[in-house]
Amino acid sequence: MENRLRQMDQRKAEKMATVGRVAATLFNQKGYLETSMDDISVAAQLSKGGIYHYFSSKHEILYFIATSYMDLLLKELEQELRKMDDPLSKMKFIVFRHIDAYTRYTSEAKTTLHESHLLPPEFSKIYLRKEKKYYRIVLDVLSEIVGQPISKSQLRVITFMLFGMCNWIYHWYKPKGYVNPAELSEIITCIFSRGIIGYRGSKMND
Amino acid sequence: MENRLRQMDQRKAEKMATVGRVAATLFNQKGYLETSMDDISVAAQLSKGGIYHYFSSKHEILYFIATSYMDLLLKELEQELRKMDDPLSKMKFIVFRHIDAYTRYTSEAKTTLHESHLLPPEFSKIYLRKEKKYYRIVLDVLSEIVGQPISKSQLRVITFMLFGMCNWIYHWYKPKGYVNPAELSEIITCIFSRGIIGYRGSKMND
Repeated sequence: MENRLRQMDQRKAEKMATVGRVAATLFNQKGYLETSMDDISVAAQLSKGGIYHYFSSKHEILYFIATSYMDLLLKELEQELRKMDDPLSKMKFIVFRHIDAYTRYTSEAKTTLHESHLLPPEFSKIYLRKEKKYYRIVLDVLSEIVGQPISKSQLRVITFMLFGMCNWIYHWYKPKGYVNPAELSEIITCIFSRGIIGYRGSKMND
Repeated sequence: MENRLRQMDQRKAEKMATVGRVAATLFNQKGYLETSMDDISVAAQLSKGGIYHYFSSKHEILYFIATSYMDLLLKELEQELRKMDDPLSKMKFIVFRHIDAYTRYTSEAKTTLHESHLLPPEFSKIYLRKEKKYYRIVLDVLSEIVGQPISKSQLRVITFMLFGMCNWIYHWYKPKGYVNPAELSEIITCIFSRGIIGYRGSKMND
């Protein structure tokens, strides 16, 4: 009995992942607002009733995509970082995971970056909690690399600079091109850490 | 007579700029594909015939927005840079102009970044020529800052890293918040130049 329940859960999770993947592809092609549940049902080769069995609305699909993507980024991240002493290794690890997740789940990543602001408040709250947790982890590692106290505002700017470099790759980066994800992570980590080690901040106040 | 023609040109340019601005706002709110010429006509308080007097299609409006924005970034850029000896001053100048243009023309900037890939080939070709020119100018300045030969691929990655930091600001930056555009340009220039001065590249081949 327990086994059967586990199998059902497993099947449900797989179906939801499939619908999420198909929907993310459509959201990227047509935009979230212009994609209908009908479009998703056709592309997923499921009846509309079948889709509603898993998701009660299009918002719920978007929520599923965005939170699953954040969960992927966060998965065991803190545990892994705790095993490392060197903040540079931590940064390289985070940047590699970030780029690797993007290259493996490009549609989900783009949907999360571009459409998650359309989530209704009850969903948005939970999504943003995950986003903030990730942001906080990255900020703490960067603060370690800087190695001396700088203002919160400066640290905030630095953190968004790194996110900018990593997230902007969807505009230009081809994982099978002249630089692979590991090399790209290496370059970003190398240059950015050189830039912030011992950075004393500008004249800006907190 | 000449005076009257100049006045007409002036009026036409102003009307086109107004339509462009209104359309860019709508493209950001609703997306380019879902915005109709009717929507633009209502928002611009012009009859549809009035709009078609200036633009023969929605694509032409998008083309106008994207190329005007690139023209703004490129305007006298090379002349100004030629006056400077120090590559760091050049970089700071470019980053400040980039951020300043973004904060003053946010809708146009976002439309250019997000929608210009939808331009039909005949328009896209001209737009991309401008984009490439800008990219080339930035790449040359960064190459000067690095100060020693590195591979083309590395230089390309470095250039896109800078564009990433600067363009990502639309996700988080509030010009009237705790850091103004001049301070933000200062921080980006300071950290990024520290990162790339004397950078010898990773093991990656060209």
